[in-house]
Amino acid sequence: MTPPTGSAGLPAGLDRLDPAQLGGLADMSPEQFRVAAHATVDLLADYLEHVEDFAILPPIEPGALRDQLPPNPPMDPEPIGAILADVPRLVVPNATHWQHPGFLAYFATTASGPGILGEFVTAVLGQNPMLWRTSPVGTELEEVVVGWLRRALGLPDAFDGLLTDTASTSSLIAIAAAREAAGLDTAALGLAGRPELGSPVVYASEEAHSSIEKACMTLGLGRIACRRIATDGAYAMRIDALESALAADRAAGRLPIAVVATIGTTSSTAVDPVPAIAEIAARERLWLHVDGAYAGAAALVPERRGLFSGWERADSIVVNPHKWFFTPLDASLLLSRRMPSLRAAFSLVPEYLRTLDRERPVHDFNEYQPQLGRRMRALKLWFLVRYFGVDGLRRRIDAHCRLAEQLASDVDAHPDFERLAPVPFSTVCIRWRPAELAGHEDEPEVRARLDAANERLMAAVNATGEIFLSHTRLRDRFAIRVAIGNLRTEERHVARAWTLLQAEAVRLAA
Amino acid sequence: MTPPTGSAGLPAGLDRLDPAQLGGLADMSPEQFRVAAHATVDLLADYLEHVEDFAILPPIEPGALRDQLPPNPPMDPEPIGAILADVPRLVVPNATHWQHPGFLAYFATTASGPGILGEFVTAVLGQNPMLWRTSPVGTELEEVVVGWLRRALGLPDAFDGLLTDTASTSSLIAIAAAREAAGLDTAALGLAGRPELGSPVVYASEEAHSSIEKACMTLGLGRIACRRIATDGAYAMRIDALESALAADRAAGRLPIAVVATIGTTSSTAVDPVPAIAEIAARERLWLHVDGAYAGAAALVPERRGLFSGWERADSIVVNPHKWFFTPLDASLLLSRRMPSLRAAFSLVPEYLRTLDRERPVHDFNEYQPQLGRRMRALKLWFLVRYFGVDGLRRRIDAHCRLAEQLASDVDAHPDFERLAPVPFSTVCIRWRPAELAGHEDEPEVRARLDAANERLMAAVNATGEIFLSHTRLRDRFAIRVAIGNLRTEERHVARAWTLLQAEAVRLAA
Repeated sequence: MTPPTGSAGLPAGLDRLDPAQLGGLADMSPEQFRVAAHATVDLLADYLEHVEDFAILPPIEPGALRDQLPPNPPMDPEPIGAILADVPRLVVPNATHWQHPGFLAYFATTASGPGILGEFVTAVLGQNPMLWRTSPVGTELEEVVVGWLRRALGLPDAFDGLLTDTASTSSLIAIAAAREAAGLDTAALGLAGRPELGSPVVYASEEAHSSIEKACMTLGLGRIACRRIATDGAYAMRIDALESALAADRAAGRLPIAVVATIGTTSSTAVDPVPAIAEIAARERLWLHVDGAYAGAAALVPERRGLFSGWERADSIVVNPHKWFFTPLDASLLLSRRMPSLRAAFSLVPEYLRTLDRERPVHDFNEYQPQLGRRMRALKLWFLVRYFGVDGLRRRIDAHCRLAEQLASDVDAHPDFERLAPVPFSTVCIRWRPAELAGHEDEPEVRARLDAANERLMAAVNATGEIFLSHTRLRDRFAIRVAIGNLRTEERHVARAWTLLQAEAVRLAA
Repeated sequence: MTPPTGSAGLPAGLDRLDPAQLGGLADMSPEQFRVAAHATVDLLADYLEHVEDFAILPPIEPGALRDQLPPNPPMDPEPIGAILADVPRLVVPNATHWQHPGFLAYFATTASGPGILGEFVTAVLGQNPMLWRTSPVGTELEEVVVGWLRRALGLPDAFDGLLTDTASTSSLIAIAAAREAAGLDTAALGLAGRPELGSPVVYASEEAHSSIEKACMTLGLGRIACRRIATDGAYAMRIDALESALAADRAAGRLPIAVVATIGTTSSTAVDPVPAIAEIAARERLWLHVDGAYAGAAALVPERRGLFSGWERADSIVVNPHKWFFTPLDASLLLSRRMPSLRAAFSLVPEYLRTLDRERPVHDFNEYQPQLGRRMRALKLWFLVRYFGVDGLRRRIDAHCRLAEQLASDVDAHPDFERLAPVPFSTVCIRWRPAELAGHEDEPEVRARLDAANERLMAAVNATGEIFLSHTRLRDRFAIRVAIGNLRTEERHVARAWTLLQAEAVRLAA
């Protein structure tokens, strides 16, 4: 397979230096910008048109690109044509092709057409909606889009919110707000400020995303404050274990401040029992944060909303548009019904940010997040929700769930494969387990052999370049994840993944 | 002034729904993407060509845009032509025009031509360089560009680093690393884990950026742990005050962990005495973090590097490419000679991120920052350093400094204006002070009158739409900042700002 280079046809004028580069002080001239931007668009449209021809994981070794580049920065300017010609020559061959329809690893991030066009506009306008004044359009589109997504997800008016970069940041903000809501006065006094309240504890299942533990590290709570609660056979948080942990921490004089319930865990997309957790949170006055970073998008589909039962009682919810909402990286939606607690955790207004007209019904969004500066993330979402329509988004998400359900039933029907977890959304966790080993899977020696075999199987599938899968461990078993959520993935790609898994297993067994 | 709408000439095909939108499951079709992207480029090139025709601050009230948009998300798809037509109709008229050459407020963020083209490529490839495996090109370009910038800034090989979103995040990472370096074991045990060491304290001048205090809030140290050190007549940290504060904290059993020295403060661009601070940091075993978010770019110019004396001794340094390096938001460079401390603060590798081949000489950059996911920020920098060349960047930054020096001397020569701070870089802090009040400025009643008059003066200049200035307070005096650093700003724009300040002062005095 020879991927198209896409380099042909750069306009000849781009091979020379722009007069602005020669001794001048200006930016690229408007004429050159227009020509170069059109040339860039053609390169990129070619790429998207042919993305399926590339091996998803580039067949390179670490350092392959770095070793081709000079260690010292260039002193003299280069023609933009030479720079753009490096896109097909150096950039594309060293990229992991997240836009390839066979990308079924991790959770997909699709740069959809309308999302990309939104990013183009965002890049040029260079808005910084840290204050309303520094970007009315960035601020108000964010307010509008947050409202649109909230309604589309079926959540009540009590939720307001903002767009952050990633779920890591969204969950960090939620837990920081929980510190304030618990009366710890952390923003002012630090975590040592109220020792009489006991050391704070955050609860999350052992299957919760690492970002929860990382938020505890960053926030100064430490990994020690992140209580990992045991899960049941379906990898969902066990309520009895949560109750015991709470009782033990209370007895030890510690201060439970928050519980994180996940709807769609990263490993197996398990759904924690949110209604029961919400009951406990209410009784124990814990901040309830719901992590729906991946699966939240499924709440767009009314028929699938049963899985989200109870999340309307959360204090905060994270759903990532840059996962299953086909939005280019980065965009994470943080919703909360307790915005003043977010503000208590992060607001700090020095004189040079004071805008002399602070009394008004709009947000200065920097007051709700750790960063001051922020990209305009709303415009790309505004574009894509309008382009697809909520109905179109529903249809696409529902189709992904159906593809996963089909794969799950194919796996279930196969004597040499087993499914390792329920499939509530669009991700299937499977293991190659030759029929003759059935019933012996849990013997330590067999398990070790299966782990090694599945690792080899995944590597063999990934080596084809047609499909990219990633793995996890479930009950200490190596599990291959097939995560569907890329807008460009069609039925034939999932079918191909399944064919390859079977074929490579046969080949490895031989 | 009627700004050009730029809406003319959208290709007619974009007025209809793409077949992919009608009941299908696909993304925008490749054909429509190509046509729509070219149309978007023309809109955006028109905008940049005519950006100077817009009023920098849009003449709107809060809510003006929001009130024009439906509160409910659209269920049905819209043609991309209708969406793009809203760029000139709704987006541009509600934007604060950061790309306007008269934008002299805050610190500028220029979306330069090559930087924009880099963002275009970034948006389409959708790379997530959290792991090498998930984006070799994103990871290795980041390694290369970090090395290029480090060398261009004249810093030694001992510094390695990464690109984050903003200086807020870069400084937060530095202080989190300082916690680990001080032996607090915060990532594991939390801030309560080592009470015998005393409560941690971070030192920064009273003129240091609010992000330092905010990092203390986020990290659980609290504002109480941020010791604001008094400054001298030039707004630089007083060494004697730092020494006293350290001695008092040691005597009280607290644990000094870090000192932040600023080269180019936000209010007046003051330069802290870094060599003396570095001596103290070495003696007291404090982490030395240098905040050069804005001014760091001036270290590109060898003749201006004297102002950076001592920063090569820092443990970490932040310089923001999205400020004076003409890079589209967001991009902050964090350099450190103690990368293992950063990693100790943030590394957490769950199974689903383990890549089975971790022994290799490349970074998995998520291990050095609070977030897991991350945009590829290196490519736009790679484009722009090559396009301008280091020499071209130097020339432009030097020219901005010369414009500021010229304005400073004009202000100094004017009987009715005074300059409120030295001008080491490209920002001038001034105050309108009618000659007849000379010698009485510090009388409380006069000061209050001057504050009010300068606030009105700044508002009057901003109301012209031609120039946008922001303010600060220096020694409790209202100061108008003229911050030069926008790539599109020419001598005539700074001259115009000065003319308007004088003319509006005369008008207000009348």
